[in-house]
Amino acid sequence: MDKIKQVAIVGGVHGNEFSGIYLIKQYQAKPDLASRASFNTELVWANPEAHYANKRYLHSDLNRQFKNTDLANPRLANYEQSRAKVLNAQLGPKGDAKTDLLIDLHNTTSNMGACLILTQAGPFYNQLAAYVKMMMPEAIISRDEDHFAAEEHALMCTVGRYGVLVEVGPQPQSVLRQDVLELMDCMTQHILDFAELYNSNSLPALPKQTEAFRYLHSIKLPMNDKGERLGMVHKNVQDKDYQPINPGDPIFTLFDGTEIYYDGDTTVYPTFINEAAYYDNNLAMSLNEKVWITLD
Amino acid sequence: MDKIKQVAIVGGVHGNEFSGIYLIKQYQAKPDLASRASFNTELVWANPEAHYANKRYLHSDLNRQFKNTDLANPRLANYEQSRAKVLNAQLGPKGDAKTDLLIDLHNTTSNMGACLILTQAGPFYNQLAAYVKMMMPEAIISRDEDHFAAEEHALMCTVGRYGVLVEVGPQPQSVLRQDVLELMDCMTQHILDFAELYNSNSLPALPKQTEAFRYLHSIKLPMNDKGERLGMVHKNVQDKDYQPINPGDPIFTLFDGTEIYYDGDTTVYPTFINEAAYYDNNLAMSLNEKVWITLD
Repeated sequence: MDKIKQVAIVGGVHGNEFSGIYLIKQYQAKPDLASRASFNTELVWANPEAHYANKRYLHSDLNRQFKNTDLANPRLANYEQSRAKVLNAQLGPKGDAKTDLLIDLHNTTSNMGACLILTQAGPFYNQLAAYVKMMMPEAIISRDEDHFAAEEHALMCTVGRYGVLVEVGPQPQSVLRQDVLELMDCMTQHILDFAELYNSNSLPALPKQTEAFRYLHSIKLPMNDKGERLGMVHKNVQDKDYQPINPGDPIFTLFDGTEIYYDGDTTVYPTFINEAAYYDNNLAMSLNEKVWITLD
Repeated sequence: MDKIKQVAIVGGVHGNEFSGIYLIKQYQAKPDLASRASFNTELVWANPEAHYANKRYLHSDLNRQFKNTDLANPRLANYEQSRAKVLNAQLGPKGDAKTDLLIDLHNTTSNMGACLILTQAGPFYNQLAAYVKMMMPEAIISRDEDHFAAEEHALMCTVGRYGVLVEVGPQPQSVLRQDVLELMDCMTQHILDFAELYNSNSLPALPKQTEAFRYLHSIKLPMNDKGERLGMVHKNVQDKDYQPINPGDPIFTLFDGTEIYYDGDTTVYPTFINEAAYYDNNLAMSLNEKVWITLD
């Protein structure tokens, strides 16, 4: 039977997302908080130099360095590319990992609350999602599992045999909010409890249907030919992560006052609205559809 | 009679505070928005390289470089020290400035709304404060005018004969929020209107008493001997800028769960609560007393 024997909780993949870094410190001070009877837990601070520099990363985004081909490429040698290889050796190797479950802790500046992001599919994830949502109704389940095969996924969490992201906001970069830290701790504790119950085959009855949001694509801010921004996220959309955007709803305001309307055909649900870290790419938000996770 | 003939509106002194940078761009596209019949307005983007780097500053905080002795010291030659000398030549020189009124636009990650910060004293400022608060009741007036003589003040706004800061939040670093941009525009427009009415001696009847907050001192996060943080701003205080803290109120939560209480003797009013930019100095918040600005 499938067992979770080794868990890794990873914080600080991004140096200016403080909650994971401090939650790891809290767990290091009281290791019982992060372990259960049926498994061991390793606590990992992924990117300390980026934190000391008070930046998301020094050379390149660590959470985009875990493709199999990149991990195997010795010429990729900058700080984060090197950290990825070290973390893969420590917690993986990806595809044959000593870590059964990897929990990667992140913050967003968007108003996303406590969000469990699943990047791979399968019955384990479906039960985990149903359990977390049942125990923590304010939790949001986000799915992005069918855009890549696991070996092509570049995310830290794909190093584990199972892996999830815990994404909590809103929190500005380089700030530590007590409420956000507590939400991250709460969701992490539920995931650890789930693994313990899963191991002993003693999960409670789980809901047959669990609401989730499935990633479709991201949209960019309005820009001119020179790559300059012409507008911003409409104030009606700001902070309204997971709230429906219908065809014809205002979505951007140009600096000259013009409103731009959503021109899609169906209702979509935005996430990562105005996320600061996506500044480089001029991303305005991610769009999702509402889906149901069904247990047999 | 005192006249405001030359105004400067300065944005982007800090590269990751986006509202001022974009408000300057909007005004450059429609210069009439920034001028009035009785004065000219110069629009200045103070620190473009810090913005391109998506950082507060490259080498040192530009808004701490305007002491007279530093402006006169040719050995202070890093990027921001050089920008300060250029801006002083362009808009000053400080103490004998061609700019009668300098409006310096800033953002904070703290929940401070639209805040007019006065760093110098006098009847002009008192009338300005009374006018802005009358026209924009949600505005907050903040005073920090009696800690330094003007020549020792290190702030950008002290380059002008008169100078104020417009500080608007909450906005994460590197994010542009429409609501925050509109608040900044609104306060700036009221300041420009005031200057126009001041010049023509046609100010409306102003309230005799205007509420303001006077800066007392800042307090640091709890730390150990090694300079590591032991706790964070208490969640009861987070986002409660300008709300009273009374002796004995919880103010910090340590990572071990202990609550720390405010041990002052009097009621104080916090500002810049958990401001991201004060990370380097471990500052938790500024404390203020409530005062009244009185017109004769």
